[in-house]
Amino acid sequence: MERLAALNAAYARCIDEDRLEEWPGFFLEHCLYKITTADNLSRGYEAGLIYADSRAMLKDRVAALREANVYERQRYRHIVGLPALLEGGAVETPFLVVRIMRDGRMDLFATGRYLDRVVEENDILKFSERIVVCDSARFDTLVAIPL
Amino acid sequence: MERLAALNAAYARCIDEDRLEEWPGFFLEHCLYKITTADNLSRGYEAGLIYADSRAMLKDRVAALREANVYERQRYRHIVGLPALLEGGAVETPFLVVRIMRDGRMDLFATGRYLDRVVEENDILKFSERIVVCDSARFDTLVAIPL
Amino acid sequence: MERLAALNAAYARCIDEDRLEEWPGFFLEHCLYKITTADNLSRGYEAGLIYADSRAMLKDRVAALREANVYERQRYRHIVGLPALLEGGAVETPFLVVRIMRDGRMDLFATGRYLDRVVEENDILKFSERIVVCDSARFDTLVAIPL
Repeated sequence: MERLAALNAAYARCIDEDRLEEWPGFFLEHCLYKITTADNLSRGYEAGLIYADSRAMLKDRVAALREANVYERQRYRHIVGLPALLEGGAVETPFLVVRIMRDGRMDLFATGRYLDRVVEENDILKFSERIVVCDSARFDTLVAIPL
Repeated sequence: MERLAALNAAYARCIDEDRLEEWPGFFLEHCLYKITTADNLSRGYEAGLIYADSRAMLKDRVAALREANVYERQRYRHIVGLPALLEGGAVETPFLVVRIMRDGRMDLFATGRYLDRVVEENDILKFSERIVVCDSARFDTLVAIPL
Repeated sequence: MERLAALNAAYARCIDEDRLEEWPGFFLEHCLYKITTADNLSRGYEAGLIYADSRAMLKDRVAALREANVYERQRYRHIVGLPALLEGGAVETPFLVVRIMRDGRMDLFATGRYLDRVVEENDILKFSERIVVCDSARFDTLVAIPL
């Protein structure tokens, strides 16, 4: 449990400190990363707003973000709750993300839960699967950054 | 400590996933559940905005909520901090609840702290007492849902 | 890790319950307490918006706050994430603070991270250093209260 909490803390710091190039390193080479909404999930829609099934796709995504350069104008702060072990081996962790604009304004950017499959690779915990289930279906710039 | 954190995580998930029928199961048959405000508490007011002293009353409350059907229109997300053991055996845990409206808007719904008495029943931790102390005295629809 | 989490929980409760006179007790006699911003930190600016290098200075600060009496009109709620151990022995912990006005309005007051050096003094963990790095550079009344 403590290792899962530490994994989540490291993941959040990586994004909040804008070290996006390190972000794909939290996943296995063959993985599933998806951002979806609670509504879509409950309707059984498989497609995500963002979808990647390899570390290479995650790297491409970061490269695209760096090129678009939109990410720099704001800051994010993840507050992550405690992981809960579900039956069947998945892990669920609630999160809240605050966005801080360049002029100092803050707003609630996203809330939701991570649905994860975690495995050990060379003694390090990695995500074989991370499905980000957002509570809200309102996504303006949300699609731009990793959650 | 880890068991208390897990109890809080399970409690929050139960509400956030709208599994309200399971919510009374977190309490002993004879219990105290109360929602009050920090102001009322410091003035020594005993009455709560919501008050129940048995699991049956909690079940009634859920039934009433389902009938009123108001709960469905929004979603909630609890972010719960770490439990602190107080002198005398009570447990205090800070919380924050975000409300997500159907149209996607999010707002800070409530903050405060849980003041709990926890006991073990058949190897499972349950609340003999949970007093929800809200920081704000502003309660519009707040009285509708469990916190 | 558990002791660090407990230290953070106790620190947050002290402020949120307005027991400010106890706040300097979380620090060593000779310490560093600083509030700064992420922008200032990344530019290498040493000066903080608030700076104290002894417990006596922290006590002075509390006395000034009590005299100014501005603090009483609102309440604060800290939600503190899990501490991460950094290389070199520092500890980093994310935080979010909600402000609750007397009339019940709530807003996001501050987000950021604590950069700490923690030592043991008579079996009790204390801060030899706590640098509060706020994500936002917007500080209106922020400078008034301890974070």
